[in-house]
Amino acid sequence: MNAFGRNFRVSIVGESHGPAVGVILDGVPAGLTLALEDFLVDIERRKGGTQKGTTPRKEDDLPIFQTGHFNGKATGAPLTILFENKNTRSGDYEKQRAVPRPGHADFVAHQKFGGFEDFRGGGHFSGRLTVGLVAAGVVAKKLLNANSLNADIKVKSTILEIGGEADLEKGLQKAIDAKDSIGGIVECRVEGLPIGLGEPFFDSIESLLAHAVFAIPAVRGIEFGTGFAAARMFGVEHNDAIENSTGKTTTNHAGGIVGGISNGNELVFRIAIKPTSSTPKEQTTLNWESGEKEIFSVKGRHDLCIALRVPVVLEAVTAMVLADLMMQAGQISRVLP
Amino acid sequence: MNAFGRNFRVSIVGESHGPAVGVILDGVPAGLTLALEDFLVDIERRKGGTQKGTTPRKEDDLPIFQTGHFNGKATGAPLTILFENKNTRSGDYEKQRAVPRPGHADFVAHQKFGGFEDFRGGGHFSGRLTVGLVAAGVVAKKLLNANSLNADIKVKSTILEIGGEADLEKGLQKAIDAKDSIGGIVECRVEGLPIGLGEPFFDSIESLLAHAVFAIPAVRGIEFGTGFAAARMFGVEHNDAIENSTGKTTTNHAGGIVGGISNGNELVFRIAIKPTSSTPKEQTTLNWESGEKEIFSVKGRHDLCIALRVPVVLEAVTAMVLADLMMQAGQISRVLP
Amino acid sequence: MNAFGRNFRVSIVGESHGPAVGVILDGVPAGLTLALEDFLVDIERRKGGTQKGTTPRKEDDLPIFQTGHFNGKATGAPLTILFENKNTRSGDYEKQRAVPRPGHADFVAHQKFGGFEDFRGGGHFSGRLTVGLVAAGVVAKKLLNANSLNADIKVKSTILEIGGEADLEKGLQKAIDAKDSIGGIVECRVEGLPIGLGEPFFDSIESLLAHAVFAIPAVRGIEFGTGFAAARMFGVEHNDAIENSTGKTTTNHAGGIVGGISNGNELVFRIAIKPTSSTPKEQTTLNWESGEKEIFSVKGRHDLCIALRVPVVLEAVTAMVLADLMMQAGQISRVLP
Amino acid sequence: MNAFGRNFRVSIVGESHGPAVGVILDGVPAGLTLALEDFLVDIERRKGGTQKGTTPRKEDDLPIFQTGHFNGKATGAPLTILFENKNTRSGDYEKQRAVPRPGHADFVAHQKFGGFEDFRGGGHFSGRLTVGLVAAGVVAKKLLNANSLNADIKVKSTILEIGGEADLEKGLQKAIDAKDSIGGIVECRVEGLPIGLGEPFFDSIESLLAHAVFAIPAVRGIEFGTGFAAARMFGVEHNDAIENSTGKTTTNHAGGIVGGISNGNELVFRIAIKPTSSTPKEQTTLNWESGEKEIFSVKGRHDLCIALRVPVVLEAVTAMVLADLMMQAGQISRVLP
Repeated sequence: MNAFGRNFRVSIVGESHGPAVGVILDGVPAGLTLALEDFLVDIERRKGGTQKGTTPRKEDDLPIFQTGHFNGKATGAPLTILFENKNTRSGDYEKQRAVPRPGHADFVAHQKFGGFEDFRGGGHFSGRLTVGLVAAGVVAKKLLNANSLNADIKVKSTILEIGGEADLEKGLQKAIDAKDSIGGIVECRVEGLPIGLGEPFFDSIESLLAHAVFAIPAVRGIEFGTGFAAARMFGVEHNDAIENSTGKTTTNHAGGIVGGISNGNELVFRIAIKPTSSTPKEQTTLNWESGEKEIFSVKGRHDLCIALRVPVVLEAVTAMVLADLMMQAGQISRVLP
Repeated sequence: MNAFGRNFRVSIVGESHGPAVGVILDGVPAGLTLALEDFLVDIERRKGGTQKGTTPRKEDDLPIFQTGHFNGKATGAPLTILFENKNTRSGDYEKQRAVPRPGHADFVAHQKFGGFEDFRGGGHFSGRLTVGLVAAGVVAKKLLNANSLNADIKVKSTILEIGGEADLEKGLQKAIDAKDSIGGIVECRVEGLPIGLGEPFFDSIESLLAHAVFAIPAVRGIEFGTGFAAARMFGVEHNDAIENSTGKTTTNHAGGIVGGISNGNELVFRIAIKPTSSTPKEQTTLNWESGEKEIFSVKGRHDLCIALRVPVVLEAVTAMVLADLMMQAGQISRVLP
Repeated sequence: MNAFGRNFRVSIVGESHGPAVGVILDGVPAGLTLALEDFLVDIERRKGGTQKGTTPRKEDDLPIFQTGHFNGKATGAPLTILFENKNTRSGDYEKQRAVPRPGHADFVAHQKFGGFEDFRGGGHFSGRLTVGLVAAGVVAKKLLNANSLNADIKVKSTILEIGGEADLEKGLQKAIDAKDSIGGIVECRVEGLPIGLGEPFFDSIESLLAHAVFAIPAVRGIEFGTGFAAARMFGVEHNDAIENSTGKTTTNHAGGIVGGISNGNELVFRIAIKPTSSTPKEQTTLNWESGEKEIFSVKGRHDLCIALRVPVVLEAVTAMVLADLMMQAGQISRVLP
Repeated sequence: MNAFGRNFRVSIVGESHGPAVGVILDGVPAGLTLALEDFLVDIERRKGGTQKGTTPRKEDDLPIFQTGHFNGKATGAPLTILFENKNTRSGDYEKQRAVPRPGHADFVAHQKFGGFEDFRGGGHFSGRLTVGLVAAGVVAKKLLNANSLNADIKVKSTILEIGGEADLEKGLQKAIDAKDSIGGIVECRVEGLPIGLGEPFFDSIESLLAHAVFAIPAVRGIEFGTGFAAARMFGVEHNDAIENSTGKTTTNHAGGIVGGISNGNELVFRIAIKPTSSTPKEQTTLNWESGEKEIFSVKGRHDLCIALRVPVVLEAVTAMVLADLMMQAGQISRVLP
């Protein structure tokens, strides 16, 4: 299944080189204003801007409200947002079918789907599908701020490092110099969350966020608050002392979550993004028809550093999860004024 | 909700100081042999053995098959396994109610559940509930090896480091010397998985495993394969070259997963465990009745290093997820011979 | 799976002759008062009272709050309510195993679960498990009346006819005279529901209620409002004219639902209950070991008319569904004052 | 939510007068052949043919495979099938907004969705959306016959009566003469089902089928096997005697289901369809703006007897449910040869 959520449910559909990609959002409150303009900034952010290292493939990427949208607002019925795939060059991929691209899902997709998968440009596995997630995120971020608590909730992701460098230009230059792709680390912070979202155990905020976050291609790890460093700390160092009756803590090693539940402090987590699988460098792979090893080199258009595009996608899946939890808690109404 | 899974569904119930804790397993194939003896080793492992740093609280912890079990086998109906709480000392906790223990869920639980939560010993938030997870894991591991592919599937977790030390005794001694608790890192490896488990995006193996893993109290991070280190690698370094038609790769930076799907190589991931919140050291906290800061020191029985108990719980949640995926794939039958 | 519900989720567990039967309720708001006494009336109603035609098997049937209950209230954690099976006579069933009882699930259970099913007294298929549903219903009815709209919601079921007779005594006497079991029709009415519960199509109130209602053993049909008679009506006869701005209609052929959504009028539906499968009369069945036909006659304790016990169970499943919908709509809070 | 199913999941989207209606099918096995031609017969059947009493609105209604379809086959990724709305006349509806059409969802939709609903032609509540269900049914019926048991499974629905007349022409003539709409009864029969589909209680076949069936607009009742008539029968009359080891019974009062599980006999159930809410006759309704009663008469295009279009939709939802159950049982593979 390619769907997630209980009361706000997101389904992702489409293929890189099919007619369209998109999302179906079920449970969107009626009355939420949704104009095309609301989507443009985040869709642009996903393209990685004019920074070095992003792919030259360009799509207009204008959201098409196919269902659930009327007079500029959500109707309360399932909201379908599609993005046409206009600028595809399938010829890049078809000849190479028996030669799985290293690091890509080509081989497992072929095994899992028996060769019936749409293999063009990664098909349903393509990072292209994250444009749908971004659209879901635009809706979810708007919902978060239509909460009935009047809480000012801000979801913000930033790149912390590229190739180990906090100076991002330097990190990218490393990749350019090496004629190779490179990974990075992205952080997400959420301010203004109420206390009490999440449940102990299976519906912990960490469980739900991690579930959604690992839907983003290329993510290899997630850590909350102090994260892996906590494994080397003493208890007294790590525990956050409560300062006052609002639950504010002096430190925030817990990243805003205890017992699986938001504690009213800033939510903080980081994710690791692997280097783009498609790299300009030559690699060895197996031709499964001939059984021979082959030298593989990327012809298509690709990013040197996929992490550059991740922040807006990370905000999107984060907002999705939090909007669902706030709806479950009755903090976002089913009809907005 | 405290439940997880699609075709093999695990619900956790109970409180630390209530009559019992346990699990309800729905979707267990009929005919699976389940004797009390099958559970003893893993239940013993969860107690942390005779190693330094584990709590002196002892329970017999014998599983009681309350439903779904007949003539020594699973019947196919929901399987309820309970563990009685015999050895509780509620007096440890009741007086301290207005004084939230640092690092624990006391404060958020009180906020979320309006003071109606069972606050004794952490109530439903207690690590005590992991005994139910361990029982679910025993069942799941047996299921994995009742697969119709005759694959020999081995789920194995080990502690990699305590307090930053690969020599675990040394790590524990650090905590003992500091009179404080300490964290650690635990790894899980699964051999023998077939290619093709998981789906792209929301039902990726990483999404499902991370979801289940963050249900384990004290987990602060998870990374697959090379994990966070991948963020500092070049593409050519990180990509795993396919060796032969079985999908075997030379390296295993991907940790056995590409595109959210098992690739037939060993599944590898690691988790970070924070130091036990309850530490012998004095800490400052807030008395929410008086509004005054108070010095808090732990009176109850607690572990210096909760990571010692985690490996068997980690195996359990891993096996749960994989058994569900194999059932969805038709690789574990609903009736076992 | 034996579970149902989205935000208020009910799981049924147990077997007729195992240690216990019961329910696990997930999503119960914290603070709901639940005393043993709250359950006694409905549990007694389920026994069919002192009317003719009910089985002599008696259980104390006192609910045991195993988890999620503290200081007389729901804690917000999963609520487990068990009922011990004290008064079982397994000898009634064991010898007859190869001889499936006509009308019962013995044969299909054996086929589906490969002979591993608990076959004693119908095992997990037994009507005994409805005591758990009744307990769920007690909780759900209390929840409905803890709604934040201050709506006075009344769920009430009555028997309309037994064996075609509106005079129930007469209907039962027919069965007694014929030395056979007999069926009946039960109606459920709900007053005080707000407008707007349910969704078009798959989450229509009718879909959800029918789903839950067919979980009650022996139900063979359900009809809403005018029901099957509507198939013989003209449009002008059937359409309910709206009287005033509250949505009140002159007639109520729709049974309080249009477009899958409650319309503020009384919710009305009826169900058909087949005659008890176990009848004192001799019947022919197949011995699957010998392959021979056999004359079968019931030795165990059974009801002449299972419909007598159904009203309280029907109220229970109805209340479950409605409580879930009101929670989804934010009309029942997660913490009750 | 407007979605249903566990391993084969159907979501319905769209509005009567929006750009499109359609379905998203998740869990479709890879390799299933799906040509446009496969859909034409059922889509044509839904139009109600050339019989009297069907609406003159015509759409080409050609399915557009938007995602999950490649080289004429399902890929295993979510399958999106859309139908464009070409032939809409919104002017029919807009002026009448404050005047809810009797029998329609106009009033409750306005209350539930706060006036933000797409009210044109019933919007998301429209029977127009059943074209998506029909498409889902074409896929599901193909899946049922791609089962690994080589069972020849036939799902077939027929109209039993119109306005109480088994002679359907006569029933329709009644409506024409009365210048009114009229109801009917539709039956569904399924041959070739294996024993063992469904579960006791909440996942009973009746629960799942009834859930799906009440998603069809205008359904007011459902009964399995002998149905409501069973309420007037004695046990010995109603019980079906097992004839032989295949589970074949002499009679089929149970309609092919005992204990919630298919018993290998023909599955039989009937549904009641109310008269079309839109009738040529004048009706009284309330103008909610003026608060005055108004005489309402239908201007748009509508069916005299919606039951005429129902058989193919009933087959569709039935096939959906059964395909899901067979996938859960491992009887339909995730990859088809």
